[in-house]
Amino acid sequence: VNGSSVRVGLLGCGNVGGALVQLVAQEAPAIAQRTGVSLEVVRIAVRSAAKHADVPAALLTEDAGSVVHDPGVDVIVEVIGGLEPARTLILDALKAGKPVITANKELVASAGADLFAAATAAGVDLLFEAAVGGGIPLIRPLRESLAGERISRVIGIVNGTTNYILTRMTEEGTTYADALAEAQRLGYAEADPTADVEGYDAAAKAAILASIAFGASVVGADVYREGISSVTPGDIAFAERLGYVIKLLAIAERVEGSRAVAVRVHPAMLPSTHPLAAVRDSFNAVFIEGDAVGELMLYGRGAGGMPTASAVLGDLIDAGHNLRSGGSGRSVLPGEAELFPIEDLSSAFYLSIEVADRPGVLAAVAGVFGDHRVSIRSMEQHGMRDEARLVFITHTARERDMQATLDGLRKLDAVDRVGSLIRVVGSD
Amino acid sequence: VNGSSVRVGLLGCGNVGGALVQLVAQEAPAIAQRTGVSLEVVRIAVRSAAKHADVPAALLTEDAGSVVHDPGVDVIVEVIGGLEPARTLILDALKAGKPVITANKELVASAGADLFAAATAAGVDLLFEAAVGGGIPLIRPLRESLAGERISRVIGIVNGTTNYILTRMTEEGTTYADALAEAQRLGYAEADPTADVEGYDAAAKAAILASIAFGASVVGADVYREGISSVTPGDIAFAERLGYVIKLLAIAERVEGSRAVAVRVHPAMLPSTHPLAAVRDSFNAVFIEGDAVGELMLYGRGAGGMPTASAVLGDLIDAGHNLRSGGSGRSVLPGEAELFPIEDLSSAFYLSIEVADRPGVLAAVAGVFGDHRVSIRSMEQHGMRDEARLVFITHTARERDMQATLDGLRKLDAVDRVGSLIRVVGSD
Repeated sequence: VNGSSVRVGLLGCGNVGGALVQLVAQEAPAIAQRTGVSLEVVRIAVRSAAKHADVPAALLTEDAGSVVHDPGVDVIVEVIGGLEPARTLILDALKAGKPVITANKELVASAGADLFAAATAAGVDLLFEAAVGGGIPLIRPLRESLAGERISRVIGIVNGTTNYILTRMTEEGTTYADALAEAQRLGYAEADPTADVEGYDAAAKAAILASIAFGASVVGADVYREGISSVTPGDIAFAERLGYVIKLLAIAERVEGSRAVAVRVHPAMLPSTHPLAAVRDSFNAVFIEGDAVGELMLYGRGAGGMPTASAVLGDLIDAGHNLRSGGSGRSVLPGEAELFPIEDLSSAFYLSIEVADRPGVLAAVAGVFGDHRVSIRSMEQHGMRDEARLVFITHTARERDMQATLDGLRKLDAVDRVGSLIRVVGSD
Repeated sequence: VNGSSVRVGLLGCGNVGGALVQLVAQEAPAIAQRTGVSLEVVRIAVRSAAKHADVPAALLTEDAGSVVHDPGVDVIVEVIGGLEPARTLILDALKAGKPVITANKELVASAGADLFAAATAAGVDLLFEAAVGGGIPLIRPLRESLAGERISRVIGIVNGTTNYILTRMTEEGTTYADALAEAQRLGYAEADPTADVEGYDAAAKAAILASIAFGASVVGADVYREGISSVTPGDIAFAERLGYVIKLLAIAERVEGSRAVAVRVHPAMLPSTHPLAAVRDSFNAVFIEGDAVGELMLYGRGAGGMPTASAVLGDLIDAGHNLRSGGSGRSVLPGEAELFPIEDLSSAFYLSIEVADRPGVLAAVAGVFGDHRVSIRSMEQHGMRDEARLVFITHTARERDMQATLDGLRKLDAVDRVGSLIRVVGSD
């Protein structure tokens, strides 16, 4: 480090990068006074310099590699997103002995193990607080505050778009389609919302949480995943009558009597008294259960330029402190926990099916549950013209048995439609 | 550090110390594998060794000073509590170049500035995650994750006893006295509950939060403080009808257009949609508002042997990591922010008064509000035999003007009793 100033090279200057440039310009004196770390953004790599009239032209370059290799740059911040060229740039920076801060969840979720190994080999920091939960302090508490804790389960609301949609459906009774359209109008959902509403974004974050909390070697594509597009206002209303809310949850949990970790993303019914039930609109939260610490929840803005830049800035000060003090941050050591197959998990289930409204149908349906040893805790029947909707809550059952029950139900003539299957989480 | 093992000297072995000894014995191998830090408790100072059959006798001593000065001890954990001898022992340890972990909120709240200065002078860690919010990661996120953040307000539910009592009163309609008795029966409240119910415990924690979040030089005794003993079921029911819950809040906030920080503890009406409103029973949570990060909340168990020991353990691993890597933790630099007088703060107020039920009384009462420029937003009147209870919510008013209004009301013949004054927080 040259003098006492930490010289930052920024790769990418979109929503998050632009906010970071602004924050550093505004807060650097206060940060230096508070922490002794002076930050200065000295180079910024962008795709097209002409489009960035908002930042000093002298800092801009279209050659990201030149920033990584510039001897006048001490620390690299990567906010380009996506797999390449981000991955290669980060690996090059680490090899050059430069700490890296990244907000790139896709990359950390898919290539985290390689990146962590490169950082450990180089003995420099690779920090990624902003990759999960935006501005929420999450990765540092998990890696540091809870370093001595035997964590049993992590349950997250880690996608703001789907939480916004489910909140509108719950509080205003709107349909999924209407709530999605509203989210798109407000800029909470993309024109193509697939990555959010089908749970891909949450699955990437679940993989990162599982690797940090449990040392599991999990990539996003390994995570069992269901989205929210088939959740209906009827499901939500029924859940509410029973004292539940429906949330899209990312769950990573240690499996009793095994070294394995189960990781999954799906809509779930959560008791309305559960702290996660009060997480509304586009907010995120992660609920952590540990043997000694009990229950914890970390809540905040999971996205947005400023909140995400705030998390990047915290990491940057950390890396700067370590550069100045000659210390190093914590390594992320390669994990050994294996992935547990979802078919062997157990939970209670909510299921809604539509059937022909004629005698004997309920007996046939109940028979299918019984054949697969799934025990029914409660049932409600609602007439709809010549059909009926049957809504079930089961006792705790194995996923494998419940899926077999669904297959069996689909084969019954009297069953017109098998609707939502929603797992019940956080009670029992 | 001798070899790679970090040798821990423990001062005090009560609830938290005992849990820590057990946690280290149980988790040390997993911690070493995960973090590279091997922990070993090598000496334990207690008042009476004969009373600690649960820990290895060879580790016990009744001479705490000998543990501090033992060259075979690398790190000191202080869980004695209270001011002396804890203060002197910690200062001695820091002077001897040993990092110190403490869970002692009274001491940090009253003598924090001296302790931090001694740690900075010695260049060693003084960590105190467990002093506020028990197992909740709070101090580290504030000091590190949010090191770059301009925090505007911190609102905490930091006392589990009072939150338990208010939760029972809210959910079951019980009186304060009955809820307190239940809390005492369950061990959530002491036989003499004053420190909890009158807000002294919360005030100490508010002082620590204010010094970490704002660099304010505040000790516990400086904090404006009201307890919950005068909150009635009627107040709670009225709040509920208006969409509020009543919580005992510790609030530290930057005052607009000033370098000062206001710090106070009092019962407050909070909108029922506020994330803190869902914090039930003996749980704690701290809600943080920052310019860039927006709203954050950190939630968990604020007390108890195991949760508190978990926080101490996280600090211990941190100190051990710094000892091994040759780095140092963050210093707490002396703060410059001044304390803002509560009389100059503004908020909306809830006030309940009992008056003689006769003509002209309301006009007289309203006149007192008007004389002090306090504007009434809504009023309800409830008859009770020959008395009436008047319940007011004001528009935003200055504390000074509201206190003058109370004085004026007490002087009116027709006013029999001035009941609860409760500030409205978290809306407008």
